[in-house]
Amino acid sequence: MWKIGLVGCGNVGLGLLRILEAKRGDLENRYGFTYAVTGVVDPFRGSVGDERGLDVAALLAAADGGKSFRGLGDPIDLDWLLEGRANVIAEATPTNLVDAMPGLDHIRRALAAGCHVVSTNKGPVSLALPELQALARERGVQYRIEGVLLSGTPAINLAGEALAGCDILSVQGIVNGTTNFILTRMEEGADYGAALAEAQALGYAETDPTADVEGWDAAVKAQVMANVFLGQSLAVDDVERLGISHLTGADIDAARAKGCRLKLIAEVERSGEGVRATVAPRELPLSHPLAGVSGAINALTFRTDHLGDVTIVGPGAGRVETGQALLVDLLALNR
Amino acid sequence: MWKIGLVGCGNVGLGLLRILEAKRGDLENRYGFTYAVTGVVDPFRGSVGDERGLDVAALLAAADGGKSFRGLGDPIDLDWLLEGRANVIAEATPTNLVDAMPGLDHIRRALAAGCHVVSTNKGPVSLALPELQALARERGVQYRIEGVLLSGTPAINLAGEALAGCDILSVQGIVNGTTNFILTRMEEGADYGAALAEAQALGYAETDPTADVEGWDAAVKAQVMANVFLGQSLAVDDVERLGISHLTGADIDAARAKGCRLKLIAEVERSGEGVRATVAPRELPLSHPLAGVSGAINALTFRTDHLGDVTIVGPGAGRVETGQALLVDLLALNR
Repeated sequence: MWKIGLVGCGNVGLGLLRILEAKRGDLENRYGFTYAVTGVVDPFRGSVGDERGLDVAALLAAADGGKSFRGLGDPIDLDWLLEGRANVIAEATPTNLVDAMPGLDHIRRALAAGCHVVSTNKGPVSLALPELQALARERGVQYRIEGVLLSGTPAINLAGEALAGCDILSVQGIVNGTTNFILTRMEEGADYGAALAEAQALGYAETDPTADVEGWDAAVKAQVMANVFLGQSLAVDDVERLGISHLTGADIDAARAKGCRLKLIAEVERSGEGVRATVAPRELPLSHPLAGVSGAINALTFRTDHLGDVTIVGPGAGRVETGQALLVDLLALNR
Repeated sequence: MWKIGLVGCGNVGLGLLRILEAKRGDLENRYGFTYAVTGVVDPFRGSVGDERGLDVAALLAAADGGKSFRGLGDPIDLDWLLEGRANVIAEATPTNLVDAMPGLDHIRRALAAGCHVVSTNKGPVSLALPELQALARERGVQYRIEGVLLSGTPAINLAGEALAGCDILSVQGIVNGTTNFILTRMEEGADYGAALAEAQALGYAETDPTADVEGWDAAVKAQVMANVFLGQSLAVDDVERLGISHLTGADIDAARAKGCRLKLIAEVERSGEGVRATVAPRELPLSHPLAGVSGAINALTFRTDHLGDVTIVGPGAGRVETGQALLVDLLALNR
């Protein structure tokens, strides 16, 4: 029986609760996965717990009605969960790439307490992944992060299990749906500003689009790719980074004239003893497996020794049931 | 410690031995996978065994030198392996779609004896998958078949683990590299006969190409897709089947005029209480994730509830380290 403590109950956390509630019987029958949500910690909705398991349907009804969780369990905090009332923490607080707080603190404390952690939070991964992996190993628990790479398209679980036995030589990816959407619209004739405005209107891009269009989000994902796929820890500043905000219709046309498409590509490859990581717009020939990936879609191509190139393509942010990334990691813990 | 008995030592079986030998240390360090190949049964190279494990390097040297395995172990047969000398049988004898022999007999006997089976053999899957799955369940062992679907591109392991928690609603695939190569060459201007001859010269197509070009191979794969992804057993005759041998340049041009590409698509989808399975050439719009899959490449698109469409693209037959499909299943048994 998994005793799940959910920390951060925004869209991702609620998405997890929704799936857990809707598929309770299915998860038990198909995967032998049984659970209780023993506590939810959220500064806005309220923090409540029940050692026998909260009424998840009641939590969802409160959230859907814009109401607080108050009264749906005893008032709790993270420490209450870590005193034996959770064996896994689902950490889904917002990403903060400056100091990774408060997520980093939550994850450190949970791992130190011997809880597994599944998390969609990119901040702790960017700033402290080696530390957190070492802490998890030391305590004999897992820190799983499927959601930080492709918003739920399961590239990390693919590499860990379905590609087991292969050596991964390099990985190239379209890892930021916003910039891929903008480049696709520019190919269709929009200029950069109009394409960005459209991405913002559709909710793909933030009001301040810097993290996406200057390649910072992709650079964090290159860090994850280097660490998880090639076993090499990098700082975000180790990633050579160029965004797309300088691109014009002339660049798109120049690529097209060569029979290519411009894509913002994150790439990690072995280089001597280390790993070289880059984020930059690249002209890809149409035969390249990533050239046809259009719109707010993500994709990764693994170059492997046994299988050559294997590519996974799936939805980027905003197109997925956001709780799935946490669920797949919970089910992996259960195997 | 896995005691592996290899039955059928052609290209696939030798490929497995090659990987096992080359990566012995790596498999132990990364996956905790330790093994001995206790016996090899092959009517052409000879059948030899050693309870302490054969010298795999010596087997490979004999095969590379065109020599028999005779003298590299004691003379054995499958029964010897099944008397406790193997806990997993890797079955890689040639596919026979008429009566599935001798593979079906090997797999039945191995499962009945309580051995796990990993197999690339499509015959037993097409003719007896439900029977073999039931037998495996009854004996508490696994019958794993990654290699029968996409020649090693790990679609079955992807669906079982990386997509865990999703419901798979339908699956569409380019599952036959030979026909995809022929259609790609026809798009480039070759007529059907010339494209087929080229596929034969490159070793993609057999001298008698019927199984590929009339869609029989794809229909068997549709059976696998229906069974493994949608939980429904079909006979091969339940698959509506149309091949590509009737297609002409005019069909290719007609698709192109609509902004589409012609692809031979295997599809399974839920339909009422059952599953509808089809193999047919389809005009796919260029935005379709399978439209850009060219040459002897395979791909599957899973339509899921939580992640929308997730596509995996990888090499078809002839482009892969053929033992990888067996290895990934061996490593899955080890988890």
